[in-house]
Amino acid sequence: MIRVTVWGENVHERTNELVRSVYPDGMHATIAAGLAEDARITTRTATLDQPEHGLTDAVLDDTDVLTWWGHCAHGEVEDEVVDRVHKRVLEGMGLIVLHSGHYSKIFKRLMGTSCSLCWREAGEKERLWVCNPSHPITQGIDRYFEIPNAEMYGEPFGIPVPEEQIFISWFEGGEVFRSGGTWTRGNGKIFYFRPGHETYPVYYQPEVRRVLSNAVHWAAPTTPRWIDEAPNVPPEQAPEPIEVRGATLHRPGDEGFK
Amino acid sequence: MIRVTVWGENVHERTNELVRSVYPDGMHATIAAGLAEDARITTRTATLDQPEHGLTDAVLDDTDVLTWWGHCAHGEVEDEVVDRVHKRVLEGMGLIVLHSGHYSKIFKRLMGTSCSLCWREAGEKERLWVCNPSHPITQGIDRYFEIPNAEMYGEPFGIPVPEEQIFISWFEGGEVFRSGGTWTRGNGKIFYFRPGHETYPVYYQPEVRRVLSNAVHWAAPTTPRWIDEAPNVPPEQAPEPIEVRGATLHRPGDEGFK
Amino acid sequence: MIRVTVWGENVHERTNELVRSVYPDGMHATIAAGLAEDARITTRTATLDQPEHGLTDAVLDDTDVLTWWGHCAHGEVEDEVVDRVHKRVLEGMGLIVLHSGHYSKIFKRLMGTSCSLCWREAGEKERLWVCNPSHPITQGIDRYFEIPNAEMYGEPFGIPVPEEQIFISWFEGGEVFRSGGTWTRGNGKIFYFRPGHETYPVYYQPEVRRVLSNAVHWAAPTTPRWIDEAPNVPPEQAPEPIEVRGATLHRPGDEGFK
Amino acid sequence: MIRVTVWGENVHERTNELVRSVYPDGMHATIAAGLAEDARITTRTATLDQPEHGLTDAVLDDTDVLTWWGHCAHGEVEDEVVDRVHKRVLEGMGLIVLHSGHYSKIFKRLMGTSCSLCWREAGEKERLWVCNPSHPITQGIDRYFEIPNAEMYGEPFGIPVPEEQIFISWFEGGEVFRSGGTWTRGNGKIFYFRPGHETYPVYYQPEVRRVLSNAVHWAAPTTPRWIDEAPNVPPEQAPEPIEVRGATLHRPGDEGFK
Repeated sequence: MIRVTVWGENVHERTNELVRSVYPDGMHATIAAGLAEDARITTRTATLDQPEHGLTDAVLDDTDVLTWWGHCAHGEVEDEVVDRVHKRVLEGMGLIVLHSGHYSKIFKRLMGTSCSLCWREAGEKERLWVCNPSHPITQGIDRYFEIPNAEMYGEPFGIPVPEEQIFISWFEGGEVFRSGGTWTRGNGKIFYFRPGHETYPVYYQPEVRRVLSNAVHWAAPTTPRWIDEAPNVPPEQAPEPIEVRGATLHRPGDEGFK
Repeated sequence: MIRVTVWGENVHERTNELVRSVYPDGMHATIAAGLAEDARITTRTATLDQPEHGLTDAVLDDTDVLTWWGHCAHGEVEDEVVDRVHKRVLEGMGLIVLHSGHYSKIFKRLMGTSCSLCWREAGEKERLWVCNPSHPITQGIDRYFEIPNAEMYGEPFGIPVPEEQIFISWFEGGEVFRSGGTWTRGNGKIFYFRPGHETYPVYYQPEVRRVLSNAVHWAAPTTPRWIDEAPNVPPEQAPEPIEVRGATLHRPGDEGFK
Repeated sequence: MIRVTVWGENVHERTNELVRSVYPDGMHATIAAGLAEDARITTRTATLDQPEHGLTDAVLDDTDVLTWWGHCAHGEVEDEVVDRVHKRVLEGMGLIVLHSGHYSKIFKRLMGTSCSLCWREAGEKERLWVCNPSHPITQGIDRYFEIPNAEMYGEPFGIPVPEEQIFISWFEGGEVFRSGGTWTRGNGKIFYFRPGHETYPVYYQPEVRRVLSNAVHWAAPTTPRWIDEAPNVPPEQAPEPIEVRGATLHRPGDEGFK
Repeated sequence: MIRVTVWGENVHERTNELVRSVYPDGMHATIAAGLAEDARITTRTATLDQPEHGLTDAVLDDTDVLTWWGHCAHGEVEDEVVDRVHKRVLEGMGLIVLHSGHYSKIFKRLMGTSCSLCWREAGEKERLWVCNPSHPITQGIDRYFEIPNAEMYGEPFGIPVPEEQIFISWFEGGEVFRSGGTWTRGNGKIFYFRPGHETYPVYYQPEVRRVLSNAVHWAAPTTPRWIDEAPNVPPEQAPEPIEVRGATLHRPGDEGFK
């Protein structure tokens, strides 16, 4: 059983009539419901308005994969929570970043780049092409699938080159975009997946749900948590016998500077 | 002429008798003097104690490559200055991160990982092996070079896999370390180079100076600055004619959420 | 149950008294026996002297992961068999290349580089450091393990930069080497693992056996076979309606040139 | 002055009336003429029908960058010539592979994959988007450029993930394709560039010529030739003093098995 926490900003769903009509219970609820169709996945949700945005140490400790959707309130996410999520990703928690989450603090923190892109909101058609038919994330998807109404995101996308290129999008208005890519940071696997504008019912679409379910299985940790500690190895514990030479800055037993 | 700014923390050089005896004018001065041996390089220095740590917009605008050495005072570097340096790297400024700079805010920001490692301060011998004899950074270096007294850094090194592996170190005490690697972030080229503990005269050593000079040439930008803006492309400017469908969240002319 | 075929050159074991004394039944038998300690793995062996080197279509179709050890007879492996193995790797069969297999036809074919290295046969100590403690291949291995007597392989190693750096070796004589790395080619996962000179009992060592067993689990395909066909998409099957313009080189129904 | 050899198959230009009408002197001549517009580039051409396909040791020794266009006669390129070109790429010669050259022996040799793709010949519009505006290869190119009539190539493209993603194409018929990517093999830089079907005047188009000229500058070697020799390091030349232990397979002075 893979334990997924679905994080949602849940702002436009409460403040914008249009978005509320599409996602009356919030996008996080719809995303979680889609994942719950997979009997090997158990879900909980967490939102910005909860204490610690619903992402306490206890919740993260109990999470194998976190999905992240945010848009208008990236700046309201507390740095302390971002630090905590970051640490858990490095330890091995999977992270799936959705659509406008490209500008979330946690995605920018993990990528180290601007994560910027071009965009247009015109309800145009998007067609996502599978670049890697053998990847676990694309199983059950044909050569491509279409989203009838989508916000356009276009290149250049300000990311480090993905370790694996999973999807590339074609847009009716003439642009292309690297819509699905993967990265590893520490022990954590990261998948960015483009679809998901809040004014369209994208997260009800079967192909999108299949990709998300696949991605959860792919991102779930398969090895124990890695606690990364920068240990000092005292001279007497060196694998080869050595004699200390010269003066030292640190005293025996000191931790290093961080 | 490549314009290099050599940034130094310059704390231990003022507070620790031993370090002062090795680097009486500060490590930054020694590093800059080494680079200045190359007639195609012009240098300035900047230190933590200066206003804005010496890294004003004007200085960064006038910098092609920044070198970074810090150790005990990483936490004292202002986030605002880190933001500024980060932005300039993405625009194309080269960055050379030295030794204990692996834990600097700017390196962690660019890598997105812990950047941690094992360490031992025993004055042992280090031998740096060239993994890529054809790389610009290793020109003029034989199959390897040695540093007689070094602080040991050992694997695992908590970094994203380098795009190019330039050096790997062998240590007398039995460890190994990925001592030289490169990454690209935005338009900026980044080189991490391990040697440089403050209690040893590493930055006077000809091979180290040669590597640094080579790295400056490699990291210097060759294309114009990239200003990355996430522009909106209005429907009427789409490359293919499209008709706007459905409701929209943004009004014409809105900037996106960041 | 993962089906592993252990391929061995099996030449020195028959012609060299020393090698025979270490591996009386052939190295392939010892490697297979080590893997068979894992109840989730089933093994068969194949050798150079068998018809089609024991690697018929039927055998490869029934193989999830192939391990490859060769040394003095790389040139005797038929190109037709190499083609067949190559095709199966691209379809998804895992491949574990051992020690002197760095110069095998199949490894060079997959890497596209020289795969060369420096070497010395002096029975010296090798210490393999774990670079990625969270990787499935390093589970059950401490920070490092040692091989008491090893042939030395040293940098530069003429490979494309590995997608994941798993191990780096320290040698008593002073060299280092990228001893474990991974690559993806098509649907196939590839792991190169350095230990294994035929004059030392390396494949009896528990840590080596553990790594090999881990690597088999890592390399086993998790998705259906990918048959890569370069299909023509006739104009009438284009996702968007198009009108054919201009003259054409191919007639309808033609296959492309290969 | 960068010395470029433009290799062309030159078959359809002689046998197909349509192709001859577009490229009366052969595509190689047109490509070379485009490059010759750059005063820092000097060109020669070589074709399949010449002795050794025009790629003798002397020619390759005098070549900094080789461009490769082939389509219907990939199989007629002698393996010995491919070996020679491969060796020169690893030594540092740049290689630019054009359009249907994706299926050339030399490209498949360097990639290690199938290099296959989907295709359609319908004279449709192609729009190439710049994914990396700061890369030397995209200088002078706007956000995108268009080719009015193109053969379509579609994903999945059977390549190792490019080290840098330079262009992605949008096709009128609805597909996308990774149209420009880079790889390093040994000391050699490789650029694949999609445009160039022989029935359309693509190599007369200014943007295509600009990209090719940029790519030549990018791919030209900047360091001395790397001769990769797999040397034996005798025990007495080990960096650390070692005593030979155990029996050996090789006698002093032996070369290794290849």
